[in-house]
Amino acid sequence: MLNKKKEIENWFRCLRDLICQEYSNIESKKKFKKKKWNRKKKSLGGGEIAMLRDGKTFEKVGVNISTVYGKFDRIFARQIPGTSKSNKFWASGISVVVHPKNPHVPSLHFNTRYIETSKGWFGGGMDMTPNVKNLALKKKFHDELKFLCNSYDKKYYNEFKKNCDKYFFLHHRNEPRGDGGIFFDYLDKDWIKHFNFIKDIGLCYLLLSSKIIRSNNTKKWNKKLKEYQLKKRAKYTEFNLLYDRGTKFGLSTDGNLEAIFMSLPPSAKW
Amino acid sequence: MLNKKKEIENWFRCLRDLICQEYSNIESKKKFKKKKWNRKKKSLGGGEIAMLRDGKTFEKVGVNISTVYGKFDRIFARQIPGTSKSNKFWASGISVVVHPKNPHVPSLHFNTRYIETSKGWFGGGMDMTPNVKNLALKKKFHDELKFLCNSYDKKYYNEFKKNCDKYFFLHHRNEPRGDGGIFFDYLDKDWIKHFNFIKDIGLCYLLLSSKIIRSNNTKKWNKKLKEYQLKKRAKYTEFNLLYDRGTKFGLSTDGNLEAIFMSLPPSAKW
Repeated sequence: MLNKKKEIENWFRCLRDLICQEYSNIESKKKFKKKKWNRKKKSLGGGEIAMLRDGKTFEKVGVNISTVYGKFDRIFARQIPGTSKSNKFWASGISVVVHPKNPHVPSLHFNTRYIETSKGWFGGGMDMTPNVKNLALKKKFHDELKFLCNSYDKKYYNEFKKNCDKYFFLHHRNEPRGDGGIFFDYLDKDWIKHFNFIKDIGLCYLLLSSKIIRSNNTKKWNKKLKEYQLKKRAKYTEFNLLYDRGTKFGLSTDGNLEAIFMSLPPSAKW
Repeated sequence: MLNKKKEIENWFRCLRDLICQEYSNIESKKKFKKKKWNRKKKSLGGGEIAMLRDGKTFEKVGVNISTVYGKFDRIFARQIPGTSKSNKFWASGISVVVHPKNPHVPSLHFNTRYIETSKGWFGGGMDMTPNVKNLALKKKFHDELKFLCNSYDKKYYNEFKKNCDKYFFLHHRNEPRGDGGIFFDYLDKDWIKHFNFIKDIGLCYLLLSSKIIRSNNTKKWNKKLKEYQLKKRAKYTEFNLLYDRGTKFGLSTDGNLEAIFMSLPPSAKW
C-alpha cells in the first residue's frame, strides 16, 4: 500500500501544479503564494496552501493539498467507516475553491481525496455556484460531467448529481447553494478503476474551470451585480460554517486553519 | 403565570422601544425599519425585527423581540431542562447586535430572555468586541457590569464574567471573541428578584452602549483600520455560525431567518 499512497499523493501534487499553472496563465495581475504547514504535536502530516488574492480575474483562489495521518479523535471517529477496532487513519487530498472578481463567473469548487482506515476509499466532486442565471452554462457544465461519468459507469452521473444536490443545500433557507454538479464518496470496490476516475475528474475540472472562467471573465458587470455576488457569498459562508463536512473534518483533525478557511469567500455581506 | 408572561413580553417590547429611540437619536442618516414575522405552520408565536442599515453611525444594528411557543423538536428538547415529560415550551426575549461603521466603536451584543418548560428561567448577557485595544474602555465596561451585578448578588459578576469568557471563545483560533462581559442562564430561584435584574441589565445596556457609541464615534479612522474591522467581523461570523446557541435555538425552533441572522455583520473579509 505504500506505493499506492505515494502514487495518490504525487497525483494530487501534479494536479495542483497544473491548476496553479493554468490559473496563473489566466490571471495577469497577481501570483500564487505557497505556504507549507504541519499539524501540531501528536498529529502527523501537513499540507501546502497555494493562494492568490486580489487579482484581476481571481478575487480569491485557493488550491490546497494535504496528507495527514495518525489517530482520529475518538468522538469524530464514530462517523468514519472502518474505525471500529482502531482510530488510525491516513488521508490525502486536493481542494480548490475559486471566488472570481467578475460576478458573471461562477464560484467553483472541486476536491478529490483518499481516506484509509481499516477500509480505504476515494471521494470528491465539483460544483458551481453562479450569481447570474445562465442555463446554457449550467447545461454545458453538467453535460461534461455526465460524459466523464458515463465513460466509467452509466449509473455514476445520476447518483453523483443527486448526492451533490442533497449535500449542497441550505436547509435553513430551503434553497440549493448553486447549480450543483457531482459529489461522491466511499468508492472502495476497484482501486485502479477508481483512481483512474479520480485522475480524469481532476483533468476534467482543470479544463472545464478554465473554459468557464475565460469565457465569462470579460463580460461587463455593474455595482448592483457585485452587491448580489456579495449576498450570494454570504450564503456560501453559511453553508461552509453550518454544514460542510470538510470544514468539520479539518477542525476535528487539527488541520491548518488557513487551509480549512481557504474555501471562505474573500468578502460577504449580510 | 399568564400575567407574568404578559409582564415579561411587555418589558422586552418597552426596552426595544427605548433602545431604538436612543439609537435613532444618535444616528442622523438612516431610520429603523420594523418587520413582523410569524412562525410557520405547526408552530406558534413570532416576533418583530427592528433593523437599521448603512447609517452614519450604525453600519448594521438590529433590535429583535420575539415570543415563541409550542413544542420543541424531539432531539433539540434533550438539551433543554424541564423537558423529560413534555416538549412544550414558551420563550420570550430581546436581542440586540450593533455593528458600528467607525472601527473605533466596538461591536456590541446584548440579550435577555425567559424560557418556560416544566421549569422556568431567565438568561442573557452582554459583551463587547472591539477592533482597537482600549484598556480604559474595557475597564469601564466591566466596572459598570460589576457594579450592577453586585447590587443583586456579590457572586454574580465573577461567575457571569467567567461564563462569558468561556462561551464567547473561538476554539478553532484559540482566542476570545472580544473583551467579554457577562453571560448567565438558568436563573430560576426567585422570579421577582431575577426579573428585576433582567430589567436593570436592560437599562444598563441602554445607557452603557449609548455612552460607548457616542464617545468613540467621532474618532478618526483610516482604510487599514477598516480592513482590520472586516477581518474581526469574519471571526464574529465564524463564532455565530459555528458555535452560537442562539443561532442553533432559532434554526431548531423554526425561527425567522432574518431575525436569526440579524447578528451577522453587514460585511466581512476572509
